[in-house]
Amino acid sequence: MANQNNHKNFTYAIIGSGALGGLYGGMLANAGFEVHFLLHRDFEHVQENGFQVESHWGDFHLPAASIADRIHASPETMPACDVTIIGLKTTNNHLLSTLLPAPTADGGVVLVLQNGLGIESDAAAVVNQIGNQSNEASRVLTGCCFLCSNKIAPGHIRHLDQGRIVFGDWQDCDGLQRSEESKKTSLDRPKSISPIAKQIEADFHAAGIEAQTTDDMLLTRWRKLLWNIPFNGLSVILNASSKELIDDEDAARLARLLMLEVQRGAAACGVTIPDEMIEKTLEVTRTMVPYDSSMRLDYLANRPMEIESLFWAPVHAAANAGCEMPMTRALALQLGFLQRR
Amino acid sequence: MANQNNHKNFTYAIIGSGALGGLYGGMLANAGFEVHFLLHRDFEHVQENGFQVESHWGDFHLPAASIADRIHASPETMPACDVTIIGLKTTNNHLLSTLLPAPTADGGVVLVLQNGLGIESDAAAVVNQIGNQSNEASRVLTGCCFLCSNKIAPGHIRHLDQGRIVFGDWQDCDGLQRSEESKKTSLDRPKSISPIAKQIEADFHAAGIEAQTTDDMLLTRWRKLLWNIPFNGLSVILNASSKELIDDEDAARLARLLMLEVQRGAAACGVTIPDEMIEKTLEVTRTMVPYDSSMRLDYLANRPMEIESLFWAPVHAAANAGCEMPMTRALALQLGFLQRR
Repeated sequence: MANQNNHKNFTYAIIGSGALGGLYGGMLANAGFEVHFLLHRDFEHVQENGFQVESHWGDFHLPAASIADRIHASPETMPACDVTIIGLKTTNNHLLSTLLPAPTADGGVVLVLQNGLGIESDAAAVVNQIGNQSNEASRVLTGCCFLCSNKIAPGHIRHLDQGRIVFGDWQDCDGLQRSEESKKTSLDRPKSISPIAKQIEADFHAAGIEAQTTDDMLLTRWRKLLWNIPFNGLSVILNASSKELIDDEDAARLARLLMLEVQRGAAACGVTIPDEMIEKTLEVTRTMVPYDSSMRLDYLANRPMEIESLFWAPVHAAANAGCEMPMTRALALQLGFLQRR
Repeated sequence: MANQNNHKNFTYAIIGSGALGGLYGGMLANAGFEVHFLLHRDFEHVQENGFQVESHWGDFHLPAASIADRIHASPETMPACDVTIIGLKTTNNHLLSTLLPAPTADGGVVLVLQNGLGIESDAAAVVNQIGNQSNEASRVLTGCCFLCSNKIAPGHIRHLDQGRIVFGDWQDCDGLQRSEESKKTSLDRPKSISPIAKQIEADFHAAGIEAQTTDDMLLTRWRKLLWNIPFNGLSVILNASSKELIDDEDAARLARLLMLEVQRGAAACGVTIPDEMIEKTLEVTRTMVPYDSSMRLDYLANRPMEIESLFWAPVHAAANAGCEMPMTRALALQLGFLQRR
């Protein structure tokens, strides 16, 4: 299956083999691609037991023997790969300068699958120090995963619902807002999807991953925030699942008001979120499985939450464009308090 | 002591003998005034043990024998009093039509010591059905208590800090906002403090209660909201005392932002809260004893919270005057969710 597209197969490095990296990397490996996983706490468990993936797309197991030379406790032992997928939380971005150089080949690309705004620049700063600087293609791809997946035990992923990756080339526009000029002309968007992105999309499809390239990742990131800001934020603050929130009259009203505020913030940054997208996002949440957002799991496990990338980055991007997001700001401050408790 | 002002002493009925009514009623009784207490759950305990008040103004005990004929399990047994003090939560205002008629004398006044905006109209609607309609003086007085007091056990009040009552005559301006004309001229404010209010103030002073009459209760109510909205709201939502909130960088920033929003809401309703009042309120909170707001205690005890009078009333008053209070609205919706949990 991995060879169906008649190109030399890309090799993949997964940095952060959790709910996201473990799922997508596991699916690529399960489909026959060469995938190298960087593991931290789970290394010994996976070395002994392999990866267990329960997915609404189909369960599978990667036996320990089949991935013995593909799992790594340190980036130093990883071979240089064509595509390095970053599935770490943005709260670990300070580690990227240590983690990216070994697995990222000269001319290889990094695909940043993290939440929030402006999060690509950390990876870009590292990658642009690696290998051939004259490579004219962008070395950084960026994507959002519309995904309900949790790591429920070491080496054990439970993928509950959805799963689509929307990704594309990253243009160095800070990842925050369009230039004044481009707000009308879309000049700072990639003219087309790069061949590398198209090949990765084909690989994802070959592995059974729902994936889609886009020339408008800034819109995609704000669309993702449309869900993350209300539901990640309120799930922590109100100690509730997405289902409990959407089923409550007041919490659902607040979610909608937050979405309208995100829509205004996006508009100030030159990104148009259509009204129907708000209704659709609410509707999808209503029919989605009850889900503990990654931020809620981080909070309950006493790990740092992605308050900067998910809340402060859009609040500041909008404020710089002249638009206040007072409700989102209030959520960010509430989360800051809860983080320190 | 009760006779020092050379007037026939007022008699007092206390409707809601908890953290507030129990303290002030207890102090009046302790100073020799005739005070009748309406008790609900605590009746039998107080009948047997009297009232225990720990107060930073001085502890005292009202022995059961001394108040045997002054405590009532039902309003029907209460004599008509000159002043009926309402210390109930506004969430119990639907009971006022049952509770007020018996203890309120023809021509007697009601002093509403409740939190929030527009809360006097419930009492006024009842009182204006009682007794002599030709009485030209307003039958409704209204006040705010700047008070840290909790009922810690049946018949047992702990008054931790502060305690000042600011009260005055109520003008029927909805209690919400000044008329357009009066925003500049103050025409809808009482021209002076009524003699009844002055006598009550003297009685309070005689009982050792810090009290102060005002001709601007609308300002006083918004000033109280300046504290209640951030600290009652966040103490429930973030499960924290006032001290834990004010000592945290983000929670203190959010409290200040909420205060600035309350200031804008008040301004839209014709009420000027000076900047210094915000700084002073923050400073007082910083140095105040760690305090569980009444709303937090209500929430923890599974009682209804005063979300309507403390949050929705100002949000709607400001909105009617053209001013959005998005952060306060978000808190109200969060509290609504938590109330139903």
